[in-house]
Amino acid sequence: MALALSLGRRGMGNAWSNPAVGCVLVHGARIVGRGWTQPGGRPHAEVVALAQAGPEARGATAFVTLEPCAHFGKTPPCANALIEAGVARVVIAATDTDPRVAGQGIAKLRDAGIAVETGLMEAEALEDLSGFFLRLAKGRPRVTLKLASSFDGRIATASGESQWITGPAARRHVHGMRMRHDAVMVGGGTARADDPQLTVRDMGVSHQPTRVIVSRKLDLPRAGRMWQSIPEVPMILCHGPNLPEDTLAPWRDQGAALVECALDGRRVDVHSVLQGLGDHGLTRVFCEGGGAFAGSLLQADLVDELVGYTAGLALGAEGQPAIGAMGLDALAEAPRFDLVETRPIGPDVLHRWLRRR
Amino acid sequence: MALALSLGRRGMGNAWSNPAVGCVLVHGARIVGRGWTQPGGRPHAEVVALAQAGPEARGATAFVTLEPCAHFGKTPPCANALIEAGVARVVIAATDTDPRVAGQGIAKLRDAGIAVETGLMEAEALEDLSGFFLRLAKGRPRVTLKLASSFDGRIATASGESQWITGPAARRHVHGMRMRHDAVMVGGGTARADDPQLTVRDMGVSHQPTRVIVSRKLDLPRAGRMWQSIPEVPMILCHGPNLPEDTLAPWRDQGAALVECALDGRRVDVHSVLQGLGDHGLTRVFCEGGGAFAGSLLQADLVDELVGYTAGLALGAEGQPAIGAMGLDALAEAPRFDLVETRPIGPDVLHRWLRRR
Repeated sequence: MALALSLGRRGMGNAWSNPAVGCVLVHGARIVGRGWTQPGGRPHAEVVALAQAGPEARGATAFVTLEPCAHFGKTPPCANALIEAGVARVVIAATDTDPRVAGQGIAKLRDAGIAVETGLMEAEALEDLSGFFLRLAKGRPRVTLKLASSFDGRIATASGESQWITGPAARRHVHGMRMRHDAVMVGGGTARADDPQLTVRDMGVSHQPTRVIVSRKLDLPRAGRMWQSIPEVPMILCHGPNLPEDTLAPWRDQGAALVECALDGRRVDVHSVLQGLGDHGLTRVFCEGGGAFAGSLLQADLVDELVGYTAGLALGAEGQPAIGAMGLDALAEAPRFDLVETRPIGPDVLHRWLRRR
Repeated sequence: MALALSLGRRGMGNAWSNPAVGCVLVHGARIVGRGWTQPGGRPHAEVVALAQAGPEARGATAFVTLEPCAHFGKTPPCANALIEAGVARVVIAATDTDPRVAGQGIAKLRDAGIAVETGLMEAEALEDLSGFFLRLAKGRPRVTLKLASSFDGRIATASGESQWITGPAARRHVHGMRMRHDAVMVGGGTARADDPQLTVRDMGVSHQPTRVIVSRKLDLPRAGRMWQSIPEVPMILCHGPNLPEDTLAPWRDQGAALVECALDGRRVDVHSVLQGLGDHGLTRVFCEGGGAFAGSLLQADLVDELVGYTAGLALGAEGQPAIGAMGLDALAEAPRFDLVETRPIGPDVLHRWLRRR
């Protein structure tokens, strides 16, 4: 199952709106098939593993990270494929909460006389597939917030200088994080200040995550790297209501997808933004700032994972904060996160945290 | 030598203004004596180890973290003691830069026919004894700055609520850090806001580090825990020039030591503060904030070590910054630190850094 989980992770950022599932077929003491959800979500992991195993699937055990699907969607159900291939036993990490599956995959397998076990490494599978489950349950993608800052939590000097606070190893890790998410998201301020590409570079991958920019008035430069790259790498622009057509049209013509969002005071409502991205099919979003946008997400309790890169330098209170205003009245209101990993990364410290739920 | 270094660390915070030295005597394959600098700086490590070894010191090898002293001070020189005991060989980690010793200890030993080797684990010894060396070279103690903050670098909410951001394990580690320093220092703002005891608690020690409070006008409460504890635990008050006698007298009468410091603009000059503490004999000072004072120390490049405790919560930009204004104009001016340790500590992250020199 550990191998199936690891295979499943290969589809992260690539399988949406489908879950990134992994499957391993074992016959006796031999692995006869491996599969993971392919780009765009099809074929499913089980189908890939069965194709690899061929006739050796007969009598094999399938380890699969998510309950096999039971419904006819764009492909026939995986439960049927496992039955037809003559698999003897299916071990499942997490059961599916999709109402079209929810236990029906397991029932179908058992009806066909296949031994089914569930719950092996369930916690790991639930965490890996949490974006998929969150979208099903609440309609929004899972959000990872990146903070790359000085040890006093600053992301730039007062004058806006930010290159470079963290070292090359941390920046490379960021590209790996982008790769495992469906989309990379920034606020309009960061888009204007940095003209970031938000692409995955030097990782030997062809697939690029979708870019998301949140800007109430769409007052973004129609020139530069970001604008020019729209035809090559998908971009979603989340903007406020009632913008004039001559603001929207150039972006649409350039190839961007436009998502109109509600306002919360003078800002785009972050709940509305994430609901819009969920409607678009996104399950995992990596937010790279800026501070004001990060503050809004935290205040709305919409951050599921934090990834911090802390550099060994001080910038002082005049520097730009990694997290903007949050409007907290008391310490008890502050959202708490549980540490899952910390280690040196080049000259910096990496720390990852999950929201305490 | 690793054992000698570890013994030497037992004297940290206790031996000033003398260096916290460790000494191990080995005869054949057996350890016959162990010693470290005793409270107040006497007896020296070598004398303690020799007393423990007795006649077995004859023909033994002495491992000592610092060159044995060669001058008659308040005690006879350790070089003489080693010669008289008949030690055959002396291995030294770091040579002494004190002009009264500087190579003369080694010369005296060699003249007596003792084999002397130097430089074994020298880097570790130089780091352990850096406060002693820094005071000799520049007249000031070594400064460790503590930052216990949310992951966005805040030490309190806007309303000043700060209990508790970090967990019990981090707070216990702070008490261990206090124990290994000669003094614990805070700015006047923190002293007024928190009325901190700044003592070592629950560590099974009787010795307490000296407390240092830096307050330009000495406008501190003459009541509460801090005031009441002055007769029991030493306190040094660093204040600005020309304060009226009726401000100074109550503190002096209560038992505090008063150190008048120069001003830098409207603040007490931090160079002057540290020079005053060096004159007082302090070699290692642990600074626990607040933000404004930490910013002044960093701006003046007077921080030698940083100890960060990062908690898994966000407080937002309205929260009080761990490091105040530093007046940086460019990123290249920011003081850089090298990571020496990072690990989980309870629910928080511990990270230690040394100033890149």
